[in-house]
Amino acid sequence: MTFSLTVRDHLMIAHSLSGDVFGPAQQLHGATYLVDATFRAEELDPHGIVVDIGRAGDALREIVGALTYRNLDDEPDLAGVNTTTERLCQIIGDRLAARVHDGGLGDARLSGIVVTLHESHVAWASYEVSL
Amino acid sequence: MTFSLTVRDHLMIAHSLSGDVFGPAQQLHGATYLVDATFRAEELDPHGIVVDIGRAGDALREIVGALTYRNLDDEPDLAGVNTTTERLCQIIGDRLAARVHDGGLGDARLSGIVVTLHESHVAWASYEVSL
Amino acid sequence: MTFSLTVRDHLMIAHSLSGDVFGPAQQLHGATYLVDATFRAEELDPHGIVVDIGRAGDALREIVGALTYRNLDDEPDLAGVNTTTERLCQIIGDRLAARVHDGGLGDARLSGIVVTLHESHVAWASYEVSL
Amino acid sequence: MTFSLTVRDHLMIAHSLSGDVFGPAQQLHGATYLVDATFRAEELDPHGIVVDIGRAGDALREIVGALTYRNLDDEPDLAGVNTTTERLCQIIGDRLAARVHDGGLGDARLSGIVVTLHESHVAWASYEVSL
Amino acid sequence: MTFSLTVRDHLMIAHSLSGDVFGPAQQLHGATYLVDATFRAEELDPHGIVVDIGRAGDALREIVGALTYRNLDDEPDLAGVNTTTERLCQIIGDRLAARVHDGGLGDARLSGIVVTLHESHVAWASYEVSL
Amino acid sequence: MTFSLTVRDHLMIAHSLSGDVFGPAQQLHGATYLVDATFRAEELDPHGIVVDIGRAGDALREIVGALTYRNLDDEPDLAGVNTTTERLCQIIGDRLAARVHDGGLGDARLSGIVVTLHESHVAWASYEVSL
Repeated sequence: MTFSLTVRDHLMIAHSLSGDVFGPAQQLHGATYLVDATFRAEELDPHGIVVDIGRAGDALREIVGALTYRNLDDEPDLAGVNTTTERLCQIIGDRLAARVHDGGLGDARLSGIVVTLHESHVAWASYEVSL
Repeated sequence: MTFSLTVRDHLMIAHSLSGDVFGPAQQLHGATYLVDATFRAEELDPHGIVVDIGRAGDALREIVGALTYRNLDDEPDLAGVNTTTERLCQIIGDRLAARVHDGGLGDARLSGIVVTLHESHVAWASYEVSL
Repeated sequence: MTFSLTVRDHLMIAHSLSGDVFGPAQQLHGATYLVDATFRAEELDPHGIVVDIGRAGDALREIVGALTYRNLDDEPDLAGVNTTTERLCQIIGDRLAARVHDGGLGDARLSGIVVTLHESHVAWASYEVSL
Repeated sequence: MTFSLTVRDHLMIAHSLSGDVFGPAQQLHGATYLVDATFRAEELDPHGIVVDIGRAGDALREIVGALTYRNLDDEPDLAGVNTTTERLCQIIGDRLAARVHDGGLGDARLSGIVVTLHESHVAWASYEVSL
Repeated sequence: MTFSLTVRDHLMIAHSLSGDVFGPAQQLHGATYLVDATFRAEELDPHGIVVDIGRAGDALREIVGALTYRNLDDEPDLAGVNTTTERLCQIIGDRLAARVHDGGLGDARLSGIVVTLHESHVAWASYEVSL
Repeated sequence: MTFSLTVRDHLMIAHSLSGDVFGPAQQLHGATYLVDATFRAEELDPHGIVVDIGRAGDALREIVGALTYRNLDDEPDLAGVNTTTERLCQIIGDRLAARVHDGGLGDARLSGIVVTLHESHVAWASYEVSL
């Protein structure tokens, strides 16, 4: 028995990718990512929820807000990181996991987080981590 | 190796939620939920299906139909239940599971059910149960 | 030559509808509406936009926020109004038009507004008004 | 009586926008745009179509392909242009209209073109031009 | 001032298309079409609606139901018709218009009908007729 | 920790299904399937990706291209197969898995594949296989 709650937001960034495999995406370009953050729990809390949807949305917005409208090639804490869609899923997912550990999402006993970034109507990537 | 079949329907209800965590949703308001019911099986039956899609859709429609166009605060069998999106997923999922156990979905050897309720374009919840 | 900009939000309300034509929707129930507000202009302003998307989104959120998490049957300014999806489109569209006339959306020379409310994945309504 | 045919593609670009009204979007950032190109005709051709869908899709892909994976701030033919979503709709729409005039979409007697760019799940813009 | 109401259904057919322009679609193949039927009116009726959504949905389902699960190449009343997406929009739209004229959609003073068929996630066609 | 990458394509086929359970779908009819192919990996490769998205998309297009615009009832390698949505998921999934084993998707250490076929806006099926 597993429950989950998902909230959606989006971010818009510029970046370039290193490696011949990326073809024209090695040039500086950009993307809008639809971001879905899923919180999982084996049982509901006494209010009947996985996590407070307001807090979940705020946490996602704050993490996404620290990345949006930026050129990721210039972000000091992403230096040397190839900011592929998969990697951005992990960055956002790990930041959400840290927020859970710090109590920023309340007392919810969460068992996992999944972050999905849709880079277009025909491609998306996902990162799943246990808590 | 896992197969699944999903059918979609929707329901429209009024309700209120108990607990400060719900903020303005403590007031009587309402929601349209897109409801996705997923049936899982480890193998296909001799016809090459997980479950008869007609029966699956009818079962979902009947269960959803017993809830729709209601004020859930007034439903006797939901008395004392905080009808959060997560809880509604569970209610629908457990009713579908009971239907499977009663043979209402045929002889399909189903291994699990997942029910997802989309409460808006930016939030959804899910409940997964093994059979 | 016509340009437009659309912003999306959503609202969740309870209500009942008067008239046999509404069948079970005569009972108190609820709905989530996806709300799309489209602003039209015959030409772009000097910045190359129809209207400031931030202002457009804020105006929509404020108007939608005055309706959401309510039981519309109890709203004094909707007394005697059958709050059908079509009528809610008009209410929101007219409030947006008033906002434009009051200068709340800047100096944009807008020629029209369209409001669409999606009440489910299989039904939506729309209201279009010239400015 | 009006017929239309729409094809969808997408593009990913980096750019920055000039003007205080754009807030943080004045920084170099990026976007994925879903691009919908609609071709209109008052009547169908002898094959029963508005325009050859293959040609329509190829024309859109070629025009979009000349923009994608670029930093629009560095494109010589966009120098001095604020590449807002509305303006990008116009650029793509006018290029499609030129293609129609040059016969690149066959003999179709088209009456208009509409180009819509979705910049996220909550915002899109559109440009409509008569032919 | 224009109001509209849209209902969605779908149909699944086999067919082949005549003419070199269709390439491999000259072979017998098939399609699922998402069908959106939009009803337009200049004003709402006394109940505050464009048309009874139940009647609208039933009319669409009946018209779509007479086409679905068929090989259109074998349908006597479509003999000699190239059943392109555009043409299918017209066929469904004209049948809906006839239904309106026969009073099958009630007393609604409708001003127009639009039928849109989505043939995939990247292509759709539309037919609009005044009443 | 699991990563995934998904690419989307579509196919259009004619077919008929054997067995009373299929009702009118026993007649020759057709369908457009939205096809989502998900590739899973426990860790990212040195470029920070699950698999080269270009190769993934090409592999899916090639496999889907061998099926599209056909009457599946006439395909020799599908003789005797009930081409249900579930079975088509498996056929496509197994062909993708073979491609992975043959090195056609590069050196990626993939752990699983999921193929989902959407047959309409209200029904879809899925097949998941470990690698």
